[in-house]
Amino acid sequence: MAQEQRLIFIIFGGSGDLAHRKLYPALFKLYVKGYLRQHFAVIGTARRQWSHEYFRQTVMESVVADIGDQEQIASFAQHFYYQSHDVNDAEHYIALKKLSAQLNDQYSAGNNQVFYMAVAPKFFGTVASHINSEHLLNEQGFNRLVIEKPFGRDLASAKALNDSISKTFAEDQIYRIDHYLGKEMVQALPIIRFTNPLLAAVWNNQYISNVQITLSETLGVGERAGYYETAGTLRDMIQNHALQILGLIAMDRPAEFTASAIHDQKSKLFSQLQLYSAEQVDQNFVRGQYGPDAKEYQQGYREADNVADDSNTETFVAGKILIDNDTWQGVPFYVRSGKRLRRKATRVDIVFKPEANNIFATKLAKIVRPRPVVLSLVIEPKQGIQLLLNATTPGNGLRTTLDELRFQPPAASLADSQEAYEKLLIDIVEGNQTNFTNWSEQYYTWRFIDRIRKRWDEVQPDFPNYCSNTFGPEASDQLLKKDSHEWIFGTDYLE
Amino acid sequence: MAQEQRLIFIIFGGSGDLAHRKLYPALFKLYVKGYLRQHFAVIGTARRQWSHEYFRQTVMESVVADIGDQEQIASFAQHFYYQSHDVNDAEHYIALKKLSAQLNDQYSAGNNQVFYMAVAPKFFGTVASHINSEHLLNEQGFNRLVIEKPFGRDLASAKALNDSISKTFAEDQIYRIDHYLGKEMVQALPIIRFTNPLLAAVWNNQYISNVQITLSETLGVGERAGYYETAGTLRDMIQNHALQILGLIAMDRPAEFTASAIHDQKSKLFSQLQLYSAEQVDQNFVRGQYGPDAKEYQQGYREADNVADDSNTETFVAGKILIDNDTWQGVPFYVRSGKRLRRKATRVDIVFKPEANNIFATKLAKIVRPRPVVLSLVIEPKQGIQLLLNATTPGNGLRTTLDELRFQPPAASLADSQEAYEKLLIDIVEGNQTNFTNWSEQYYTWRFIDRIRKRWDEVQPDFPNYCSNTFGPEASDQLLKKDSHEWIFGTDYLE
Repeated sequence: MAQEQRLIFIIFGGSGDLAHRKLYPALFKLYVKGYLRQHFAVIGTARRQWSHEYFRQTVMESVVADIGDQEQIASFAQHFYYQSHDVNDAEHYIALKKLSAQLNDQYSAGNNQVFYMAVAPKFFGTVASHINSEHLLNEQGFNRLVIEKPFGRDLASAKALNDSISKTFAEDQIYRIDHYLGKEMVQALPIIRFTNPLLAAVWNNQYISNVQITLSETLGVGERAGYYETAGTLRDMIQNHALQILGLIAMDRPAEFTASAIHDQKSKLFSQLQLYSAEQVDQNFVRGQYGPDAKEYQQGYREADNVADDSNTETFVAGKILIDNDTWQGVPFYVRSGKRLRRKATRVDIVFKPEANNIFATKLAKIVRPRPVVLSLVIEPKQGIQLLLNATTPGNGLRTTLDELRFQPPAASLADSQEAYEKLLIDIVEGNQTNFTNWSEQYYTWRFIDRIRKRWDEVQPDFPNYCSNTFGPEASDQLLKKDSHEWIFGTDYLE
Repeated sequence: MAQEQRLIFIIFGGSGDLAHRKLYPALFKLYVKGYLRQHFAVIGTARRQWSHEYFRQTVMESVVADIGDQEQIASFAQHFYYQSHDVNDAEHYIALKKLSAQLNDQYSAGNNQVFYMAVAPKFFGTVASHINSEHLLNEQGFNRLVIEKPFGRDLASAKALNDSISKTFAEDQIYRIDHYLGKEMVQALPIIRFTNPLLAAVWNNQYISNVQITLSETLGVGERAGYYETAGTLRDMIQNHALQILGLIAMDRPAEFTASAIHDQKSKLFSQLQLYSAEQVDQNFVRGQYGPDAKEYQQGYREADNVADDSNTETFVAGKILIDNDTWQGVPFYVRSGKRLRRKATRVDIVFKPEANNIFATKLAKIVRPRPVVLSLVIEPKQGIQLLLNATTPGNGLRTTLDELRFQPPAASLADSQEAYEKLLIDIVEGNQTNFTNWSEQYYTWRFIDRIRKRWDEVQPDFPNYCSNTFGPEASDQLLKKDSHEWIFGTDYLE
């Protein structure tokens, strides 16, 4: 059974969609599992005028009773309180402070507070600054700040945001959410790398030819068009999710598995990303925007609601990333993300160099050349590990074919799998920063991304340039073909 | 389609069980597949007085029509001729020579001959010597000698046998059969090792903890008791099959995949087997003999027909073999073979050293220690490759468990799999010695085995010492436990 935690949650944006869709169901799971029992309360704040009772009603409706029963849901909701709030009004912070102190006494919450920013990013700085000026921090217990993405839209804005919150919170109090870091298989990457010497031995440029990170979606922009028009795939997927996965794949082995050691290794790795000139951006990064599919069942991005008719927002990015260190010199890391692609997947395909010393090459013609070994770490939709090895197929004589070793957790254990938010919330209440990003990581990833964004803002793209239900623009395939590689996961991939 | 071969088979022991059970069905498959078409004949010789017609009748009955039809079987059998034969009678060899010459003309068989020894080993020398003295070798084409096991019963007798046949046949004309070398997955071992750099990188004592070779049978001695009483498991399974598999696992990479390069590497490896003193034999080798099972449904070895009541013949061997070279210094190779064991299997389990630098060791108590990675090369009953890696199971927090990657060929392709004899016969007609043993391998393996046999012949065992339907005597488990290891494949093994 889990160890009970004592704390008050203060959720800015507590009436909103994110809070109801992700946070409250996840908090309920923590409640059922015993991380939260008697000694906690949740304060929702937002502009709207809600009563405690109405708030509790919305919370109860948001909780799916797939675990726990109605009685548990009702008693869980009794821990919820609502405070209407204007983020710019100092008085409101004083009221919030009072409520938090009162609930702390009422629930014996140990003087611990989690401030959760489920509001628009533009309010992050204002809220943090008022938490400071109105003295909401409690010196007896812990104070933690949880910040949803996006953490800035370029290095300058990320830095401004970080400056504004770090006046109030120290780095070890800040939990920057990248919900991909809450996914089971993403968290498994360090375990897979660092507990299997067989893999660790070949995790370098002597053995690895290239690494392919794919985050593909089949859906279009949908209702997020308003936000998406201001972001694009490079900011929405590459700067954070794709690079975080790259960091976990490529970072050096930390001396021990602690949050600070992990962050140090990822930061070091991100500081070694080769920064591109404008010309190198053109050579190494591809952007795309989807049009309708071939049969025009689905409309293109520019036809979507809240999207400009001449929008140049990219819905697809493919890029070749180089790392300037001894381990990865010469190994391209290809990243790819896009909407309206043919298959939904989040996966890492590690392609090993083929055997250079092929002792079978001089034999009879029926012997096929060995192909590269491929290790695939599949995060979604079905998590698992696949390994393609050369072996023989039954029959006459020597023949090397790629035989697949595959692990997928049985369906029963997958049902047990926790939502990313639940895992991240447990980390937050337990004070474990491992699966969050720190400022240094944000700094180096934005520094890298800015070069690309800047070049793309200078040059007019020729959009749309790929059909829905494909794997993106032709240039994405060409990017690898130039290096004599090809995407492992693609049209011909057999699952 | 296969390339047609031209030759005359002369089968000593042509009326016997081995010939009918293994050889003729395999030859028929070569016929259906086109290795043999019009230009071949088979001469069966044995003491009995059979007509060509009667012989053909027995051949037709021995051929299972799982491929080909009755018409094909009948036309195949037309290539068979019978010659009654006394191995000591020179006249009979002259008659045989005449028949072979006649059939060579009749079938345009290219002056090629394969002499197949399907007789008792004691006749090998006599037959070979007569082939020489009565000039049966044909100088225009090829002459190949095929010898069934056992190749001697110790180094001295193996050497005598080899001397007797090598007066007539050169080493490159001699095909010593070890039918395990005809098995699909055994032939795949070099491919798996030498076309997957990911595996080759860790194939040494830096990464491998120990190697376990298991050849277990569920059956008892059955009708082979007469022979078995003179042999025992050490001679019957370890000197040949188990050591040949060990050789393919442990030999150095040959410069190219040719028969001579493979033989050179295996010979070198066998010459590096650490030779044991009497005391070391006692420490490193375990013998056993089965008694009845716990419920006495099955009788013990000593109760079997043709077995002495006080027989000391071993039906089980487990041993620890050490290899004196830089690659394998300190890596025990455990071999195990026995009858009446709980499960039937032929497999190699390669156990890797666990991660020494466990970065997860300092974390919360819920983190399990990584276990050793295990690569299993399963030869029988279902051929395939399995790899146990540390990964996470879905659920809360870090947990390392052993996740299994597994490859097994689909049933359809397995149906295509060839019997070992068929594969070996193709090699014989094509002149490929790769999958046979050479004299040097026999020499070094017998030199190693003799030390054990000698010690065991000096000391009275306490038999029977294991129940049928177990995994052998307790001492077999202790052998590994002394080194802090355990058999991977055993009672608790989940398939």
